[in-house]
Amino acid sequence: MPRWEPGARERMVVAAVDLFTEQGYDATTVAQIAERAGVTKSTFFRHFPDKRDVLVAGQETLSTLISEGIADAPDDATPLEAVSLGLDRVSAAMGSMNRQLGPRMKAAVAASAELREREALKSVGLAAATSDALIARGVPDATAHVAAELGVLAFKRGYTLWAESTAEVDLAYYTRQALAELRAASAELG
Amino acid sequence: MPRWEPGARERMVVAAVDLFTEQGYDATTVAQIAERAGVTKSTFFRHFPDKRDVLVAGQETLSTLISEGIADAPDDATPLEAVSLGLDRVSAAMGSMNRQLGPRMKAAVAASAELREREALKSVGLAAATSDALIARGVPDATAHVAAELGVLAFKRGYTLWAESTAEVDLAYYTRQALAELRAASAELG
Repeated sequence: MPRWEPGARERMVVAAVDLFTEQGYDATTVAQIAERAGVTKSTFFRHFPDKRDVLVAGQETLSTLISEGIADAPDDATPLEAVSLGLDRVSAAMGSMNRQLGPRMKAAVAASAELREREALKSVGLAAATSDALIARGVPDATAHVAAELGVLAFKRGYTLWAESTAEVDLAYYTRQALAELRAASAELG
Repeated sequence: MPRWEPGARERMVVAAVDLFTEQGYDATTVAQIAERAGVTKSTFFRHFPDKRDVLVAGQETLSTLISEGIADAPDDATPLEAVSLGLDRVSAAMGSMNRQLGPRMKAAVAASAELREREALKSVGLAAATSDALIARGVPDATAHVAAELGVLAFKRGYTLWAESTAEVDLAYYTRQALAELRAASAELG
């Protein structure tokens, strides 16, 4: 695994996940996160509005990356091919920190109602960004919504498998596999 | 439209939606909701943990109804037929109050970040209940997840159309139409 030198933002995310896991989300304060990350509270608040937002820090980036990947897909790409290219864009931005934090983030989210809500909003937001990007390409509404939900499912499934594995492959290896499986499942529904 | 005699719980939901729409979610207090509904604050808190929960009061019922409809579907029903029967069960429980409140609820949710999060959790919870019920019937995971997302999309789309229309039809008329459209869109993806 390559050596990874985190900046202040990354250190805060790691510190928050560690503290949420060790002592629970409710018991963790912004002051504790800042202290463990070696930054001041005001640095924390320059990056995040709230401790809750630390775990979904990448949400907007995620939506932007997938939208851009879809917009840049060749004109003749099918809706799912465009989604797949969007997920490749996301994959290219995810490094070893994302991979290592995955299982711990998941545990912290599972243990807190507040984080589960934030996570749910992330899923819904990602689906909306994906379907908007497809509709902007001229994909009909119903098709765009279905393709977007498949993209979100593929992202979640792919990310889980990637975080659990130590194979020398990137996230896209798993998201593409998951998307193919979901496409086959969809075809069988008809 | 049939005459509708609301009980205390329904009066609180109506009062909350009206107040959220008139003066915004943040400015509305539990005391105001209780007063307008003609109940005490302690009655309010016997029904709802928080003002936020008023708008998603039906969430558990919704998940239970769809799960039961899926479980009771004939053994030879396809996954989407089972989902459709689950949505029929939901439809049978939705009366004119649900229809009339739909557009106002939607406006209140759109105007408040906190309500949007609660609404997102509702979608995710409904999808999870639906896929769990399908998996319990022996439907493979990927198929169950896709069918569940189509079910949630069909519910949202159907509910919006039903609430906007004044035609003498029940919710199931629209959810079935939406599900058929989404199924066709899925088949085209493959």
